[in-house]
Amino acid sequence: MIRRNLLKLPLVAALLAGTAGLAMAQDGEKKVIGVSIPSATHGFMGGLNWHAQETIKRLGTTYPNLEFVLTTAGDASKQVNDIEDMVAARNIDALVVLPFESEPLTAPVKSVKDAGKFVTVVDRGLSEEGIEDLYVAGDNTAFGRVAGEYFRNHLESGKKIVILRGIPTTLDNERVEAFEKALDGSGIEILDKQHGNWNRDDAFTVMQDYLSKYPEIDAVWAADDDMALGVLEAISAAGRQDKMWVIGGAGMKDIVKRIMEKDPQLPVNVTYPPALISSAIEMTALHFTSNAPMTGRFIIGSELITPENAQRFYFPDSPF
Amino acid sequence: MIRRNLLKLPLVAALLAGTAGLAMAQDGEKKVIGVSIPSATHGFMGGLNWHAQETIKRLGTTYPNLEFVLTTAGDASKQVNDIEDMVAARNIDALVVLPFESEPLTAPVKSVKDAGKFVTVVDRGLSEEGIEDLYVAGDNTAFGRVAGEYFRNHLESGKKIVILRGIPTTLDNERVEAFEKALDGSGIEILDKQHGNWNRDDAFTVMQDYLSKYPEIDAVWAADDDMALGVLEAISAAGRQDKMWVIGGAGMKDIVKRIMEKDPQLPVNVTYPPALISSAIEMTALHFTSNAPMTGRFIIGSELITPENAQRFYFPDSPF
Repeated sequence: MIRRNLLKLPLVAALLAGTAGLAMAQDGEKKVIGVSIPSATHGFMGGLNWHAQETIKRLGTTYPNLEFVLTTAGDASKQVNDIEDMVAARNIDALVVLPFESEPLTAPVKSVKDAGKFVTVVDRGLSEEGIEDLYVAGDNTAFGRVAGEYFRNHLESGKKIVILRGIPTTLDNERVEAFEKALDGSGIEILDKQHGNWNRDDAFTVMQDYLSKYPEIDAVWAADDDMALGVLEAISAAGRQDKMWVIGGAGMKDIVKRIMEKDPQLPVNVTYPPALISSAIEMTALHFTSNAPMTGRFIIGSELITPENAQRFYFPDSPF
Repeated sequence: MIRRNLLKLPLVAALLAGTAGLAMAQDGEKKVIGVSIPSATHGFMGGLNWHAQETIKRLGTTYPNLEFVLTTAGDASKQVNDIEDMVAARNIDALVVLPFESEPLTAPVKSVKDAGKFVTVVDRGLSEEGIEDLYVAGDNTAFGRVAGEYFRNHLESGKKIVILRGIPTTLDNERVEAFEKALDGSGIEILDKQHGNWNRDDAFTVMQDYLSKYPEIDAVWAADDDMALGVLEAISAAGRQDKMWVIGGAGMKDIVKRIMEKDPQLPVNVTYPPALISSAIEMTALHFTSNAPMTGRFIIGSELITPENAQRFYFPDSPF
């Protein structure tokens, strides 16, 4: 999600080492996996940091001879330094990296690959194709389509909805196009689609405007949980809570909890999981602990979170 | 690989249960994973059976509360029965299935999914999209491209090559198109491309014909290790072993061994790993043992096997 590129807060470094070990499933050799991610500067990335740490804990226990080096960076140059240190000082065998930005990280990650390390790139591609062994990312088309299908299946023809868009990006276009395609021929009317920039305050303003312009709105695709919170505030301020439901996205824990509690304003959610970092770390670990091929592209599906399955997506200890 | 659909040998059933256990990483609950694959009726599928068993052994040790039911089927109706039994008699929590054929397996696998089980489909899609939680398959475009790039990088302009094609299928077209695209503009001349049907004997015949027709052949893309064996035989019979090298594909152990030994006739190979079943089983296990999202599409890259990395692809105990 591009918005995470836009935050350049003071650098907050965290470092934790895993456990060094006894014997490996495969051949008893100790293997060191470096994990380099952006700092926990906002909700989604906070969740991602938490999941990275939990996964490293889990793997350190399950595979005592896997060792982990986790670094977090508030900007691209700090991240480049982190990665160089991992190679020079820790002699990593693999790197799992969620690039702060694609361009400045491409050459440094390429040199890790050229040094013979296993490289896993997460969420955002590098500027050059074919560097990484494994690519793990979310599915933006499914993110829009799954939400659109819910609207289609739960609103009659003639019902009116509004959309909040993210920051203008290819990614946002993919999501919105897939959403609209899912509604094709449904007779559901899209009244408006303005950019709330994946930001709670911007979304509040956009929704306030929608509410004053449109006397009938039956549902809102907020397309993001931060935006959903701003939208809900605006709806409350206008006293129209009973008139429309709202679908956000990404699986923020407070929203997942309200889905579990069957809040009629928030019937479902669509995943774009911060735990995708866990998939990347787990699969990188399998490269060393199993015979299973782990080279390729893993595109994590966007799933519908419903009251029935919400428990599986609820992580009360995560900050997100 | 479609060719595996074409074999309908007498059914050979194998069944082995994993280990029932004590405590799960996640929540201590016992989980049962059913694995349904075609019988070991030929080389590649023999390898796949072996890797499935090895992975189940590994996971049974690593996660004592995961239990496995493995069945192998010589035809589609046996596979349908196996799957129905897994649900009825073993109450599986997840199904990993490599469909013998797409059409007859679609409805039975859908009903497993509808019963709330986690479903992983391997190698061949079902006839209806969106049934499975996780899809794991090889990358046919990369399979052709990686081979093509090797030819491009190791033959000068003007050199002459021949291609052996598989059974006429979309899959074979994808591979061959990607191979030819990789050669575009290289000046390498493709003398001929005939169908050897992924079969050793057919490949022998096709290669015999090539050898009689073309006095100069510098290299052969056999595109498959069974075909490579037939091609090598024909070359030996013609006494032209020193004139050309041969690239097969899929990573058969005897061929990987010759690569390790730097056989000049077999410089490299391209993976289409029978161990893809292991990736599917491992990822399905992670769905129960970790918080990592494992829903989506994992397309396993085709890698170049060279003398330097061949050890990683060599499984001496596997039948393939």
